[in-house]
Amino acid sequence: MTSIAMIEAAAGRAADRVRRTPLLSSPFLDDIAGRRLFVKAEALQHTGSFKFRGAWSAISALSPEIRARGVIAFSSGNHAQGVAHAAALHGISSVIIMPEDAPRMKIDNTAALGAEVVLYDRAGGEDRDAIGARLSAERGLTLIKPFDNAEVIAGQGTTGLEIAEQATAKGVTQADVLVCCGGGGLTSGIALALEARAPGLRPRPCEPEGFDDVTRSLAAGARATNPSPTGSICDAILTPSPGELTLPVMQRLCGPGLVVSDDEALEAMALAWSRLKLVLEPGGAVALAAALFRHETITGDAVIAVASGGNVDASVFARALARLG
Amino acid sequence: MTSIAMIEAAAGRAADRVRRTPLLSSPFLDDIAGRRLFVKAEALQHTGSFKFRGAWSAISALSPEIRARGVIAFSSGNHAQGVAHAAALHGISSVIIMPEDAPRMKIDNTAALGAEVVLYDRAGGEDRDAIGARLSAERGLTLIKPFDNAEVIAGQGTTGLEIAEQATAKGVTQADVLVCCGGGGLTSGIALALEARAPGLRPRPCEPEGFDDVTRSLAAGARATNPSPTGSICDAILTPSPGELTLPVMQRLCGPGLVVSDDEALEAMALAWSRLKLVLEPGGAVALAAALFRHETITGDAVIAVASGGNVDASVFARALARLG
Repeated sequence: MTSIAMIEAAAGRAADRVRRTPLLSSPFLDDIAGRRLFVKAEALQHTGSFKFRGAWSAISALSPEIRARGVIAFSSGNHAQGVAHAAALHGISSVIIMPEDAPRMKIDNTAALGAEVVLYDRAGGEDRDAIGARLSAERGLTLIKPFDNAEVIAGQGTTGLEIAEQATAKGVTQADVLVCCGGGGLTSGIALALEARAPGLRPRPCEPEGFDDVTRSLAAGARATNPSPTGSICDAILTPSPGELTLPVMQRLCGPGLVVSDDEALEAMALAWSRLKLVLEPGGAVALAAALFRHETITGDAVIAVASGGNVDASVFARALARLG
Repeated sequence: MTSIAMIEAAAGRAADRVRRTPLLSSPFLDDIAGRRLFVKAEALQHTGSFKFRGAWSAISALSPEIRARGVIAFSSGNHAQGVAHAAALHGISSVIIMPEDAPRMKIDNTAALGAEVVLYDRAGGEDRDAIGARLSAERGLTLIKPFDNAEVIAGQGTTGLEIAEQATAKGVTQADVLVCCGGGGLTSGIALALEARAPGLRPRPCEPEGFDDVTRSLAAGARATNPSPTGSICDAILTPSPGELTLPVMQRLCGPGLVVSDDEALEAMALAWSRLKLVLEPGGAVALAAALFRHETITGDAVIAVASGGNVDASVFARALARLG
């Protein structure tokens, strides 16, 4: 299991390679939120999302011999780009397995970052796990899971170390920390870091409507599952259920979850654009949306929202901008 | 005249109030630029542009008695918002004089930041200087000029102190530093800071086609003027000629200017959006555009571009996004 010592070790390995992202704010957003609102701008991380932190942590934690054989990941999204770039910077090869109907831009970006992209036919029933197992066995590749991996969680936890330092520097020691939540890697990593470094900061997972498996799991005290795998524009955080490693951490350390609509995520994207000059994707904007539009369920005179990613298609972004009409 | 001691004093007064903006990068942009490209993300500054630095510096440098009477500025753009917000944070009043045909959003934003906005009828021949002189005399307001003010230049120079530190930390000690240039306050401030702290970093002003008064002034060794006051989407940096205080500094310390088209500025905005997750306005994107599209006139294995502002209308931004189509 991930410990604060592992998170600090991940931070040590990340020095100069993982970007320390700023904590942004705007008086216009404070007004809407009804309190001081600080936005951890993790969309500014390398590859446009926090996923680079976990990928860097997991790859840098491997022994040189194991690492040299390369890594493999299943992802069509931010994890793919994080693993591809972290592998390239380590000078090792990466194989990313994606469905062949993934957006062309994501396939191209991942390949351009240096990965070998292997496409499989999702509709035709090809088994991606079998493909991955075969490649791993043949080439000795190490699988980097997106969240159920203790070193990945440690890497995401470095975000929490920075939040603890940055919030303390602003005099904020008691506040909710809202985190965009899919499988829970970022949320549980931040939770472990804050427990050790800023115990007055309470993490709370934020999810889109219809995909609130973590919120319901925390409320019920038992693992919940989403009824459908698709159906929200917040594609980066649509996981079927909480992770095996992450749920126990979130149950022990997190406050209640917050749920927002796709429309509210788009509105938060528009406000991040106009007030923070920050590009967010829908799944990376749900925590900001919760801070702005669920403020009646938040207490205290300050709140922190983690803006976890900004990899969004121009057409979706245009929908957010159109709201500013 | 502004000195390095004044810039360092401005940095001291700015501590915790002016945001230290990150130096961003992307392997995709490196490929286009043909070298390592670092982007000083000053659009993330409070009020969305570097202008807050100069405003904070000038207001914080006033004696408490003078400051308490309030300040006044002429601006319909980024300087207005910077002065309004810096004044409000000092707990003093500000008067901003704007043409009544300025965009409603800019008027509203400036007022929302706490300024008293006084509109004048540009078409009807009202004399804004006379209005300003009357208000200043009646109320003892101090005029904060946008660039021809030694303390404003010192404040903009704090950007240069950060660039010197951040570039050195990345091992970059010899490089061109491209700066979006209107009246020259930011360019000359950065130039003075780099002269003292990183003499291998050479500032170069960047301007839009048809508004290259600084580039021509440097080339000719004499003050040049733009033929037209309007006609580019880079509205933030359309000044008629270089400043009185700023031109001598730029003549002494800057390399040759770089000129880009409006189309290239839009393309740079699109790339900053997709690769850096950073929102730029056209005038804030010309230095990045020069780094990307004038790379044959740049030498060395690294270049730094200052992305100076991000206050842009949604309709203009949509034009940039449409290029990604």
